[in-house]
Amino acid sequence: MHKPYVILVCPQLAENIGAVARSMSNFGLNNLRIVSPRDGWPPSDEAFRLAAKGSFVLDKAMVYDDLNVAIADLNFIVAATARSRYMVKKIMHPKKMVEYCSQKFNSDIKIGILFGRENNGLTNDELGLADVISIIPTNEKNSSLNLAQAVSIFAYEFFSQECIKIGKSYEICNKEEFNNLFDLLITSLEQNDYFKEKNIKNTMIQNIRNIFVKAELTAQEVRTLIGIIKNLDK
Amino acid sequence: MHKPYVILVCPQLAENIGAVARSMSNFGLNNLRIVSPRDGWPPSDEAFRLAAKGSFVLDKAMVYDDLNVAIADLNFIVAATARSRYMVKKIMHPKKMVEYCSQKFNSDIKIGILFGRENNGLTNDELGLADVISIIPTNEKNSSLNLAQAVSIFAYEFFSQECIKIGKSYEICNKEEFNNLFDLLITSLEQNDYFKEKNIKNTMIQNIRNIFVKAELTAQEVRTLIGIIKNLDK
Repeated sequence: MHKPYVILVCPQLAENIGAVARSMSNFGLNNLRIVSPRDGWPPSDEAFRLAAKGSFVLDKAMVYDDLNVAIADLNFIVAATARSRYMVKKIMHPKKMVEYCSQKFNSDIKIGILFGRENNGLTNDELGLADVISIIPTNEKNSSLNLAQAVSIFAYEFFSQECIKIGKSYEICNKEEFNNLFDLLITSLEQNDYFKEKNIKNTMIQNIRNIFVKAELTAQEVRTLIGIIKNLDK
Repeated sequence: MHKPYVILVCPQLAENIGAVARSMSNFGLNNLRIVSPRDGWPPSDEAFRLAAKGSFVLDKAMVYDDLNVAIADLNFIVAATARSRYMVKKIMHPKKMVEYCSQKFNSDIKIGILFGRENNGLTNDELGLADVISIIPTNEKNSSLNLAQAVSIFAYEFFSQECIKIGKSYEICNKEEFNNLFDLLITSLEQNDYFKEKNIKNTMIQNIRNIFVKAELTAQEVRTLIGIIKNLDK
C-alpha cells in the first residue's frame, strides 16, 4: 500500500495547515495537497511554527485551485466526514478503511484522503468524488474535530497498519528458577508458622503461587525476590 | 469498562490543556485530572477558547500537586509514552491496550491514562506507577506528538472499542492499597539494611515495584502479601 496523500479542501486557518503538517510527519506521511487555501500560499510563519519538525511537508506541499486536478493522478479517494449524509457509498470506520485498503491495494495504488473546511466540511459534490466515506466515530453532542486531529487519526491508522510490533518481547524465568523461589518462600513461611489452619494450607499455597505466576517474572526478578525473602526472614 | 480518566502530568501550555479538553469531549470523555500545571489554575482564556464545546471538561477538572494522590482511587494506570525505556513492563499499542482493558475489566474498574510534559514526557518514577505502557507508533525521525493529539488517539481508541465483555472481569486493588503494601515492603527492607548500595537504591526500588505491578494484584492478594511480609519480618 502506498502512503496516502492528504488533501485539504479549502482550509481556512494557516495554523491548522501547520498542525496538519506536524502530525503527518509524526506518522511518516509526506504528501500534502491543498485546494484553495483561504488565506493564500505560502502560509503564515505561525503555520511553520506549528508544523515544527514537519515544516518540510509544507515546503513540498502542492497547491491547486481545482479539487479534480488535485486528485487526477490518484487511484482511490476516501472522504473524511463527521457525519454520514444520504449518499449511496460505502461508509467505513477509519480502522476498517485502512484494513480494506491494505488488503486490496498494492504499492502502485495511490490513495488520497479528503478533509473539508473547518466550518462546513465537504460539499456533496466533493463527497461525490470519493470512492468511500470514512467517519471517525465521535460523541454526537460534540462531533466537531479539530482538522489536525482528524488528520492525525487517519495517519495513525495507516501507520499502525504497517507496524507489526512495538517493544521487545520480554524474558520469563524458567520453571526451575520459579520453583526455587517458590519453595524458599513456602519453607520460610512454614518455619514461621504462617499456615496455622492446616485444612486450608493447600489453598493458601495455590493462591500465593498465583500471585507470583501472574507477574511473569524474569530470572533477574526471581533473584531479586529470593534476596528479599532472605533479607526479611533473618 | 469505565470511561478512562485522563491525567496530565505537569502540562506546560494552557492552550494544550484546552485542546485536550476539546478532544476528550469529542470522544465522550469527561474526567480530566491535572498534576501541577506549570501556569497555575484556572487556565487562561485561550485554553477555554481552544476547548470550545469541551470547556465543561475544564470546569470540572481536578487539580493536584501529587501524582500519587491523583491516581489513589484508580485501579489500572496506563502510561502514554513516545518511546520505550528499559523497564520490565508490558508495552502495548493503544489499540491492543484498549482491547485488553475492555476484555479484562468491568465498569467498576477505573482506568487512568498518564500523559507527561510536552518537552520531557514522564520521569522514570512516574512511569513506575503505571501498570502498562502504551506507545503510539510514530515515525522515528519525528516522534514528538502534540499533547492533544496523543490524547485524541487514545480517546478515539476507547470510543471506537465496542465494549463487549468476554469472560468475567476481575478486580484490581486501587493504588492506595497497592502503596500500603509497597511502603511496608520497602520500609521493612530498609530496616533490615537491604539497600546496601545507596546509589542504586532508587533503581532497585523501581525494579521491585515493577514485579508487583505486573502481578495486577487484587485487594485480597495485597492483604495476603502484607501478611507474608509481616510473617517473614519478625
